[in-house]
Amino acid sequence: MIDSLSAYQTRNNQQLNHWLEQLPHQNQSLIEAMRYGLLLGGKRVRPYLVYITGLMLGCEPEELDTPASAIECIHAYSLIHDDLPAMDDDELRRGQPTCHIRFDEATAILTGDALQTLAFSILAEGTLAQHAEPYRIRMIQSLAQASGAAGMCIGQALDLDAERRQVTLTELEEIHRNKTGALIRCAIRLGALSAGEKGQALLPFLDRYADAIGLAFQVQDDILDIVGDTQTLGKPQGSDYKHHKSTYPSLLGLDGAEQKAQSLLDEALQALASIPYNTDLLEQFARYVIERKS
Amino acid sequence: MIDSLSAYQTRNNQQLNHWLEQLPHQNQSLIEAMRYGLLLGGKRVRPYLVYITGLMLGCEPEELDTPASAIECIHAYSLIHDDLPAMDDDELRRGQPTCHIRFDEATAILTGDALQTLAFSILAEGTLAQHAEPYRIRMIQSLAQASGAAGMCIGQALDLDAERRQVTLTELEEIHRNKTGALIRCAIRLGALSAGEKGQALLPFLDRYADAIGLAFQVQDDILDIVGDTQTLGKPQGSDYKHHKSTYPSLLGLDGAEQKAQSLLDEALQALASIPYNTDLLEQFARYVIERKS
Repeated sequence: MIDSLSAYQTRNNQQLNHWLEQLPHQNQSLIEAMRYGLLLGGKRVRPYLVYITGLMLGCEPEELDTPASAIECIHAYSLIHDDLPAMDDDELRRGQPTCHIRFDEATAILTGDALQTLAFSILAEGTLAQHAEPYRIRMIQSLAQASGAAGMCIGQALDLDAERRQVTLTELEEIHRNKTGALIRCAIRLGALSAGEKGQALLPFLDRYADAIGLAFQVQDDILDIVGDTQTLGKPQGSDYKHHKSTYPSLLGLDGAEQKAQSLLDEALQALASIPYNTDLLEQFARYVIERKS
Repeated sequence: MIDSLSAYQTRNNQQLNHWLEQLPHQNQSLIEAMRYGLLLGGKRVRPYLVYITGLMLGCEPEELDTPASAIECIHAYSLIHDDLPAMDDDELRRGQPTCHIRFDEATAILTGDALQTLAFSILAEGTLAQHAEPYRIRMIQSLAQASGAAGMCIGQALDLDAERRQVTLTELEEIHRNKTGALIRCAIRLGALSAGEKGQALLPFLDRYADAIGLAFQVQDDILDIVGDTQTLGKPQGSDYKHHKSTYPSLLGLDGAEQKAQSLLDEALQALASIPYNTDLLEQFARYVIERKS
């Protein structure tokens, strides 16, 4: 685990809790389920990427809370919906019962819906740095682009479509570029745009970095599904295998998948070399992605 | 049916189709299901309210296409999710198989998710009148407020919670103020904000009008569930009764519900009296709400 990750986890949780507390009907199970889905564990990788990208460009942490919170809401909603019986049918997430098990299916569907909306509420209403204000609409566009039918949602659709059949490596990359990659790219974009114009100028390099680590993240997830253990993962080990999912190890072998992860790390580090700021935390994160055990 | 409603239905359908055509992966069932959910029938009440409110204040139709399309995406997503087996479990909508029947449950969940995102994409990216540009963020805030855990989603949650038990009239109004009222209010607000400052100044009166017709809409829906016929409604008559739902007729009797609808119409017309523009279409719409047969 990266040292600074847990500090930003805590910061992000406090921010998310603050947003939840503003909602009416606090005693309703919908609000309870939103809190459960948002605050119970999770690595907070996407908020962390918002923070470290923005900090690199000179932002203060409080200038990054809004996009960090918004993107975590999108991620949390996607997990809740992906876990539903009609989707991946998972009963365990982060070592805890999934939302539809802890509550019920109707509540889980609504909770995901409301968390998606909350993401856009936060990004439309939350505080930004003054020099980032002209980029607020751009941030909302970016989040919508990354999470909808041109990003995360189509990725999940392609993934469901690919179940129980062999896919090619190109198809697998298209799935993950959308399903997980788009939101990781967006996190880094939101961090960059929080710094205003100078962040915008770096988007080509940051996109390249993001695309590499986004894919590496998935490759490592696939590897961990084989070599990890259920307790560390917080979800059943071998569930990809159980669902007959095409994965990097199933297409490339375990060694091939590990080489793929390594070459994506190299690609990410190369992209960082073009960035004239202190990229230490982004570099450390890229290494963490392929070295993590959960 | 109001004469001008069908012209704006067509206009709205063309706009929505235009947005759908921009999406990649057109051959995927997700995109097909989004098209099915968005374009197959529907009265287009919310877009119509955007148009007639904005037109009253001097906007051109093309200055209203963006908010009209966005709000219909939210409405369409909510219908798809509400129809799911875990929610209202409806197999027929607008005389056609519901999305999860025509496709499958996973696709229906994702389709709703992606339509919600599309709403925010449209509002963030679509063309607005130049004088409305400063209100774009405000429009996004308004749409998120109306559709999430402080609006439509909590309304659906309260509605599910109220199933199979007797609720009070106050509880029933709280359900519908959120479940359907919030989005109707938002439609009118989006139309008003499209006219910029002069629209904003009228929000107190327009909100009052919207709240009255929003509730009247639901009262009439409840009445039609008893007195309508399945073919005209496009959904099974008596389904509220089948689901043991509390409705205005079940709490007030059929006569009492009809009186309630009439007094809400009076309230709406009174609110319009304070508006120094030609309110004919808004008045006509208010009358349509409680006179319609489907």
